[in-house]
Amino acid sequence: MKVAKFGGSSVASAEQIKKVAAIIKEDKDRKIVVVSAPGKRHKNDEKTTDLLIKLGEASIENKNSELELAAVLTRYEEIATELELDEAILQEIEDDLRTKLHSTYENDGRFLDTLKASGEDNNAKLVAAYLNSTGQDAVYINPKDAGLLVSDEAGNAQVLPEAYDYLYRLRERKEVVVFPGFFGYSKNGILVTFPRGGSDITGAILAAAVQAELYENFTDVDSVYAANPAIVKNPVEIKRMTYREMRELSYAGFSVFHDEALIPAFRNKIPVCVKNTNNPKSSGTLIVAEREYSLNPVIGIAADEGFATIYVRKYLMNREVGFGRRLLEILEDVSISYEHIPSGIDDTSVIIRQAQLTPALEQRIIERISQELEVDDVHIEHDFSMVMLVGEGMNNTVGVTARAATALANQQVNIEMINQGSSETSLVFGIHQKDTDRAVQVLYNEFFGPEDKH
Amino acid sequence: MKVAKFGGSSVASAEQIKKVAAIIKEDKDRKIVVVSAPGKRHKNDEKTTDLLIKLGEASIENKNSELELAAVLTRYEEIATELELDEAILQEIEDDLRTKLHSTYENDGRFLDTLKASGEDNNAKLVAAYLNSTGQDAVYINPKDAGLLVSDEAGNAQVLPEAYDYLYRLRERKEVVVFPGFFGYSKNGILVTFPRGGSDITGAILAAAVQAELYENFTDVDSVYAANPAIVKNPVEIKRMTYREMRELSYAGFSVFHDEALIPAFRNKIPVCVKNTNNPKSSGTLIVAEREYSLNPVIGIAADEGFATIYVRKYLMNREVGFGRRLLEILEDVSISYEHIPSGIDDTSVIIRQAQLTPALEQRIIERISQELEVDDVHIEHDFSMVMLVGEGMNNTVGVTARAATALANQQVNIEMINQGSSETSLVFGIHQKDTDRAVQVLYNEFFGPEDKH
Repeated sequence: MKVAKFGGSSVASAEQIKKVAAIIKEDKDRKIVVVSAPGKRHKNDEKTTDLLIKLGEASIENKNSELELAAVLTRYEEIATELELDEAILQEIEDDLRTKLHSTYENDGRFLDTLKASGEDNNAKLVAAYLNSTGQDAVYINPKDAGLLVSDEAGNAQVLPEAYDYLYRLRERKEVVVFPGFFGYSKNGILVTFPRGGSDITGAILAAAVQAELYENFTDVDSVYAANPAIVKNPVEIKRMTYREMRELSYAGFSVFHDEALIPAFRNKIPVCVKNTNNPKSSGTLIVAEREYSLNPVIGIAADEGFATIYVRKYLMNREVGFGRRLLEILEDVSISYEHIPSGIDDTSVIIRQAQLTPALEQRIIERISQELEVDDVHIEHDFSMVMLVGEGMNNTVGVTARAATALANQQVNIEMINQGSSETSLVFGIHQKDTDRAVQVLYNEFFGPEDKH
Repeated sequence: MKVAKFGGSSVASAEQIKKVAAIIKEDKDRKIVVVSAPGKRHKNDEKTTDLLIKLGEASIENKNSELELAAVLTRYEEIATELELDEAILQEIEDDLRTKLHSTYENDGRFLDTLKASGEDNNAKLVAAYLNSTGQDAVYINPKDAGLLVSDEAGNAQVLPEAYDYLYRLRERKEVVVFPGFFGYSKNGILVTFPRGGSDITGAILAAAVQAELYENFTDVDSVYAANPAIVKNPVEIKRMTYREMRELSYAGFSVFHDEALIPAFRNKIPVCVKNTNNPKSSGTLIVAEREYSLNPVIGIAADEGFATIYVRKYLMNREVGFGRRLLEILEDVSISYEHIPSGIDDTSVIIRQAQLTPALEQRIIERISQELEVDDVHIEHDFSMVMLVGEGMNNTVGVTARAATALANQQVNIEMINQGSSETSLVFGIHQKDTDRAVQVLYNEFFGPEDKH
């Protein structure tokens, strides 16, 4: 049994949904299908979810929201018409939305969550109807009926352990199950949405619950690449990688999906395959618990911008018991989380994501550190990037650091920071943000050969 | 005005003290001389300080301690006889020791401190007597009379600010002042000894107090070397280095002196010169606040053994606010201080000096981290070395890391950890302890050319 999840672009139009149907038909093991709301059909298009947010906001402001409602319904209508579906499905969707608009809610947040989730929910009904119209035996299943129980934290639902037992029963269905992504229900029956990557989360939970042999994540790229194609021309495809490699690459800016979304699959060792709805023949990228090491110690190169460093110097710092702990405590107090802490003898730096800072907060941090820790110097520098080399077993290969540092030095990229030594699968270089693209290109060429040669 | 401090080997025998006298005579600016207790004259010799400790312990155990007293007095007697000094000085030393042995003390620690300090104190009297006998106008000055006031923490005295004003008056002395190192007096008149490097501390305090143009630290080596001569054959001499470079090298195992001993000189920007009593013509190593960068970004390579790493892994660690702080708090609770904290996304390592650990303490640390932080894995690995490249402005030189990492990789030295990014003057590699000597040799050859070519 396989669980297949289709993202927004894979279900954005009738044409795309036909591809989805063909993919499901092709493999009888694809028994559970998770769908997103219809996404963008072209660059300037609006996602259904965004249309639903506009509808909700108009309604909250007590405006006449018929225009906004029509915009949402039109999206479904265009799809249904082209798929030659019965009018009944459109009426069902319209009735559903009008009911939701006129129900009462605990607060506006709950109302908006419910409206947003209807994007996935109604699309699942529509896809199920289409599959049935083509002769495939399919059934729409609502998360409440299936027992997808989650914690009651709006926008940040966490699956409850007992949900897995309820969802296991989906194995018994003879039909292809079409399941909306993005939300579950609390024990009190309230709809609660997942955090970012919501439909991916639903798919991962279902894959874990039914003990699927594979969780297929259909999107619009052929595979995960060894580097960002916007920086490196035609980077090599990654055929097989481990959860850990995926996680490290996601952290440093790889945006195929949010690695945390896949946790339920990872925890249950369900292999995950990233595939392309528009090119299903491509084998995609398989993400597994273990892999054999290849000759190349590096599997991917990621980079993320927007880091700042809080530099602190105090003579004899390393003799002061508790200094590091007190420094972290001050940052914790102002809700700053840190990424790395390179340290000297009399100085230490704390590298953080600078989006957490405001000028006022910087001032406060500097004042508190100055006063409470009586330091000789404290200042904040901005606009660093972290470039990460990722690969299982990299730590066992003498010379990865040497090759990377030499390649960067040859191109005059100064290394401001190195973090190596805890993770065995990654090596992080801190550089000036302006050097980011060049650093990624240089490292790609070093470990994968010249760009555009594949 | 210069302050010259002579270490134990420089005043170990009559022959050595004659060299000291010649050095003082040669430069009229050498107005303040700080002396240690007579040190070892040959490899298997005993230091006077150790003889004094034996004397003190015998006395505490109420044994007849005449034999131990005789051993101490013999050291001074041999020196005095060969220097053809008047009997009076030996009688003065014996009277002093017998008085100290029979006085009453707050506790045994105070008694031992007083006996130990007599090694320097009586040697200062003896050196002053010798200088006078050769026609140099010299005077022994006791720290109490001079106003060297310190905090009342046995074995860890800290100079009090007001001491500097009292000591400034030493400038007014016409004679060469001979001053014992290693101890001062509390405001209550109790003798208190300095921590390790005690005589160096006394010299640095006096140099700062009298605003000396130079603090000369006479020892038994021609200079500070770019690497440990026990590992690298004929390493280059360091002619000029900054306080910061000295501090970083000292930290990582350079044992010329304890860098903290020099703090009073550093704080007052008094240049410090390391010179050889046995070869005073050699220019030695000058340690200053600032220096011009040379072509070589690296000034020295140090290595220190005996590090352990506490490895902690927890899925989603980097999302857990306060994790790092709580980890450091546990270590602080059991009085473990740390050196470096390389971190991954889901793991972090804390590198510590393993001398702090016992098997029972390791067990306790692992248990507390497991239970309180609910980690997926925690374990401790032993026997790492930290190899440190030091040099001002190293951070401005693209490629130092690349050269170092490549040199190590070429010799199959695996880099377990790198810490770069806070200090601009150092780069630390963590390696397996067994690779230490090889790593130092390899890095020396990379940055200073082949060994033994100078």
